[in-house]
Amino acid sequence: MEIDFKKMEGLIPAVVQEWATGEVLMLGFMNREAMEETLRSGDVTFYSRSRRKLWKKGETSGHSLRLVELRLDCDSDAVLARVELRGPGACHEGFRSCFFRRVETDGRLTTTATPAFDPAEVYGDGWR
Amino acid sequence: MEIDFKKMEGLIPAVVQEWATGEVLMLGFMNREAMEETLRSGDVTFYSRSRRKLWKKGETSGHSLRLVELRLDCDSDAVLARVELRGPGACHEGFRSCFFRRVETDGRLTTTATPAFDPAEVYGDGWR
Repeated sequence: MEIDFKKMEGLIPAVVQEWATGEVLMLGFMNREAMEETLRSGDVTFYSRSRRKLWKKGETSGHSLRLVELRLDCDSDAVLARVELRGPGACHEGFRSCFFRRVETDGRLTTTATPAFDPAEVYGDGWR
Repeated sequence: MEIDFKKMEGLIPAVVQEWATGEVLMLGFMNREAMEETLRSGDVTFYSRSRRKLWKKGETSGHSLRLVELRLDCDSDAVLARVELRGPGACHEGFRSCFFRRVETDGRLTTTATPAFDPAEVYGDGWR
């Protein structure tokens, strides 16, 4: 598997899309180890840039992403994980998708989605 | 509009999804100028990391991406452009989507999509 991890210092962007609905849930980053762990375990695993370590999505919330199919783009520098979302939402702010805000033409942000769960219940008081 | 362009030296990943079908077509990068141009013109515009300049998708092929809605993620460091694809495909290799290969569990790549157009006809002989 020849994947180009060089452009971003060992990382590639990984788009997560819900298999059943087509909804784009989130975007994370993978290094080679995270991708291998995702393929091996079937649970989508990222590399956290802030914590500088592997991060299995759902390890705190239980809202994991079960891999259905991993796709690679033409330049071999981005992947698309098509998944089954196990839980009410992928976003730590309580929404199904992290892309819950619309950017209006004038730059204002509008929240268009409705919350799917209470993040304080799932992540505890320190979730922010 | 407070978007976090700091994490990647002025760039954020921009996922492109076809509005009508939900298909994820490609992933590019935007700097602030590319995002403003996308919102202003309604044509998705990226920043090309290799050419180091703005790049309006379709300026060579004519296969442009008409913006329907731009969405921002929870961390304000990635966007999702939901678009109308004007043309047979978004990928310079002749497929509708750049994500035309599946990564198998053992790392092998399988092309699962069928070509949508002949890239040599669209981009000329130098398309590779």
